[in-house]
Amino acid sequence: MENNTIFVGSKPVMNYVLAVVTQFNEGSNSVLLRARGKAISRAVDAAEIVRNRFVPDSDVTDIQISTEEIENYNHEKTNVSIIEILIEKSE
Amino acid sequence: MENNTIFVGSKPVMNYVLAVVTQFNEGSNSVLLRARGKAISRAVDAAEIVRNRFVPDSDVTDIQISTEEIENYNHEKTNVSIIEILIEKSE
Repeated sequence: MENNTIFVGSKPVMNYVLAVVTQFNEGSNSVLLRARGKAISRAVDAAEIVRNRFVPDSDVTDIQISTEEIENYNHEKTNVSIIEILIEKSE
Repeated sequence: MENNTIFVGSKPVMNYVLAVVTQFNEGSNSVLLRARGKAISRAVDAAEIVRNRFVPDSDVTDIQISTEEIENYNHEKTNVSIIEILIEKSE
């Protein structure tokens, strides 16, 4: 499962869409999109674009949210939200 | 159910946290957070803050994502992602 995780960051959304499509084309049946903070909305966009436009036989089968404590450059601790979106291909 | 929907926009996250807490204090057993576009990450933050800090006997029980077509100020159609996060209080 870990191998199929794509970390969504600040690049254009189509980069992540392409990464998901590539995983499916290489034979994966599931891909996990993981994002934190402001990138969360980009992960949702990527999942929706994959499902609606590029891999019609795929669907979002699970979405989890959670919180992680991170340390900023001042060594202060701050909380950041995480989203994990599981996209699976129906056989 | 519709009455318990809170639309998350561009205000500070604590405004939405307070709105959820108020709903629960007024006797609701469930609150739906709904956001689109860039506000999606703020809705996730609000849900996490409610669950972890303010209403410990609540939990996120369902998350749905979808796409809506909207018309911008130039009358051009564009797609926007939506998230709906259901927070429920255990009895």
